Amino acid sequence: MNSEDQAFFAKADQIDLSEYVVLDYFFESSVEPTHAAAHLCQEQSTAQWKRVGVDEDMRPLHAAKVIDLVVECMPSQPCIPFMVEHWDRLWACRVKIAYPIRNIGRALPNLITAACGEGAFFSPGIHAIKLQDISFPPGYLEAQEGPKFGIAGLREWTGVHNRPLFFGVIKPNIGLAPEPFRDIAYESWLGGLDVAKDDELIFDTDWSPFDKRTRLLGEARLDAEQKTGKKCCYLANVTDEVDRLIPLHDIGVANGANMLMVNAMATGLSAVRMLRKHTEVPLVAHFDFIAPMTRSPYYGVHSRVITKLQRLAGFDAIIFAGMGARMKTTRGGVLADVKACTETLCALQREHTADAPCPIKPALPIPGGSQWAGSIESLYRDIGSTDFAIVPGRAVFGHPQGPKAGAASLHQGWEAIRSGVPLADYARDHEELRVSISHNH
Amino acid sequence: MNSEDQAFFAKADQIDLSEYVVLDYFFESSVEPTHAAAHLCQEQSTAQWKRVGVDEDMRPLHAAKVIDLVVECMPSQPCIPFMVEHWDRLWACRVKIAYPIRNIGRALPNLITAACGEGAFFSPGIHAIKLQDISFPPGYLEAQEGPKFGIAGLREWTGVHNRPLFFGVIKPNIGLAPEPFRDIAYESWLGGLDVAKDDELIFDTDWSPFDKRTRLLGEARLDAEQKTGKKCCYLANVTDEVDRLIPLHDIGVANGANMLMVNAMATGLSAVRMLRKHTEVPLVAHFDFIAPMTRSPYYGVHSRVITKLQRLAGFDAIIFAGMGARMKTTRGGVLADVKACTETLCALQREHTADAPCPIKPALPIPGGSQWAGSIESLYRDIGSTDFAIVPGRAVFGHPQGPKAGAASLHQGWEAIRSGVPLADYARDHEELRVSISHNH
Repeated sequence: MNSEDQAFFAKADQIDLSEYVVLDYFFESSVEPTHAAAHLCQEQSTAQWKRVGVDEDMRPLHAAKVIDLVVECMPSQPCIPFMVEHWDRLWACRVKIAYPIRNIGRALPNLITAACGEGAFFSPGIHAIKLQDISFPPGYLEAQEGPKFGIAGLREWTGVHNRPLFFGVIKPNIGLAPEPFRDIAYESWLGGLDVAKDDELIFDTDWSPFDKRTRLLGEARLDAEQKTGKKCCYLANVTDEVDRLIPLHDIGVANGANMLMVNAMATGLSAVRMLRKHTEVPLVAHFDFIAPMTRSPYYGVHSRVITKLQRLAGFDAIIFAGMGARMKTTRGGVLADVKACTETLCALQREHTADAPCPIKPALPIPGGSQWAGSIESLYRDIGSTDFAIVPGRAVFGHPQGPKAGAASLHQGWEAIRSGVPLADYARDHEELRVSISHNH
Repeated sequence: MNSEDQAFFAKADQIDLSEYVVLDYFFESSVEPTHAAAHLCQEQSTAQWKRVGVDEDMRPLHAAKVIDLVVECMPSQPCIPFMVEHWDRLWACRVKIAYPIRNIGRALPNLITAACGEGAFFSPGIHAIKLQDISFPPGYLEAQEGPKFGIAGLREWTGVHNRPLFFGVIKPNIGLAPEPFRDIAYESWLGGLDVAKDDELIFDTDWSPFDKRTRLLGEARLDAEQKTGKKCCYLANVTDEVDRLIPLHDIGVANGANMLMVNAMATGLSAVRMLRKHTEVPLVAHFDFIAPMTRSPYYGVHSRVITKLQRLAGFDAIIFAGMGARMKTTRGGVLADVKACTETLCALQREHTADAPCPIKPALPIPGGSQWAGSIESLYRDIGSTDFAIVPGRAVFGHPQGPKAGAASLHQGWEAIRSGVPLADYARDHEELRVSISHNH
């Protein structure tokens, strides 16, 4: 390694990791990996580290530094390269880079610029690069809000314990006036749905004004609580221009919406953090505008990183692409997002801080996409916990017997699992589940 | 085509295009293209278009509709497919979809959700999809602000006419205290630099507080104007949490920063629109967090779309990946971004509105990446106009004779072009240019 490159390397025990965010990249390079990795650090930080004619060096304090580099395949040992036509001339590597917090402070846009900006994606000799993971020192996290409620707070808020939460997307999503929209939501609450939610494509429009919609559903929610003796939640979508988020929060909450959704990346994570400081109710993220940057296997940003950043921004629950053919996501990919919601965000640094717990609360993972009573069990087994939610649309609001029956079918599906009875057997005495099974086959 | 799919098709003259945004996608499907395209529209809009047991249909008013579909290759005629291992079983298509504005209103996060949300990227049978272009009806654009200054306003603001603008990134970017940072910026203005700018990685930090930095550079800028008799601009980076944008604008502008930069996608486009309503000075976009979603050839979002959305959000000038090996961008890709800055945003609808001009001003295109005096000419020839800027770092602030000489070398490079003299010949009598040439070889 030449001495210029050496300035961008450090052993993990030679620098104070409490002052660095750790970025974990996969990359493929056409130049020798230590040189490629050093150049990557340079582009991300001290691109020019001294003035002309001045004896100075900004790198000791301000350079991003390679703390781990593993060559996964070399030109002579091809594995599964991205640039298939050049696989015999590329290295594939994993690199951990310690990025100085002093360069960027605590603001999310600054962190995103450092981790996913021009530097990372336009570094010489690197042709494919994907940010695979990110972790933080406890001190950095202590200065962040993170989820206001978290999983424990959400359970208290909804009164749901010892089972997954049942969200349902009110459908038809687009075009329905607030009154019939209210009516079907009300039916779903009577059937036991925990959270009736706006679709991500329903906004504040003239055919469904936010004020009127939240007022009608807020009233209906309280009626349903009276009737069922159970907490009912209405999750209203406040996605709009960022200077409307707080006004919509205030209108919605005053009207009785008791959870709010933001299409996170379409609106911007820093805007969510602003709303988080203000919110009185739990915040839920929807996963629009994430696939374009996460789904190339060797380029972009891993969805677990986006999930972690959403949690850092303050979401109490995060909907992401879940299991099933339509979501085009591997089991491993879904579980990576689940863990990004629930596990510590300071993995690497834990060794340095004597078991200090993560100061950021866990967020409730909600794998999205085409769920129904029959898909709960495999999800429950895969996640290995009841700390998740499902968010069906059609299984509740397209149930042939209506939304009340649709919601009931979810509870019956869970009861079957809890009792250890096969779904088909349990369905014999439970008509809503029986209809749901035949509707899904 | 079956009748369900037919509900998602319309001839362009059968619907009122003034009520639709037009989305232009490339996609590859494993199912017959009309069926795939109809499903795509359904996922993006009326995913469920009626209540159970009610005779209604939301699709006529609220469905997204295919108005053009071209099959570029069929399973029997493979071309250059994304999923190489399945090329013999995929269709590759271009589709234009008319998306109802009534579904989403005018807010940018809503538009992004519709165009780049769950619906577009998780549609059954579609395995690769890229949003290639977007266009708007004039009525939609009239309700948007767009650039406050635009190219004409920027020329008036900077006093630069009949040539490209010369921006320069003050370097060292990270770690330099405000005083020496001010000194090198001042030198560059004396050499004739139009806009000395903050790097995208310099924020409001304790080693370079925004207040102090903008105050020192604001004063120095006025001094330089006195000394040179020429307008000098300081472009300060206000990238930070969104609730800090307007406070930083107010501090910066009061201190004498007379242009402001935002790392657009890292901060969020809607936050930029909020700043645009408030700003007293031109706004410039930097291109962080765009590559991850734009650079897969058959997946994600084309950079021209992101550029158009940045213009719509209100940027007066937009820095994007330019020519040269480091930027890994084709000439065609760069020119697509240039056009997205300057051409009408209502291309498709123009036929319907009798030559109504585009109500959104053009933004100044700034192709970024490793420019110097010698790279101006090819850019000028490619763009075919002087309406652009270059934004070198090293060519100004790494010039062996200092930033004043670096800035002068850019003017000399332009004068050579203007006079029709080969650069090497012109350099004989112009030392700054001569040094720059040998420094770049």
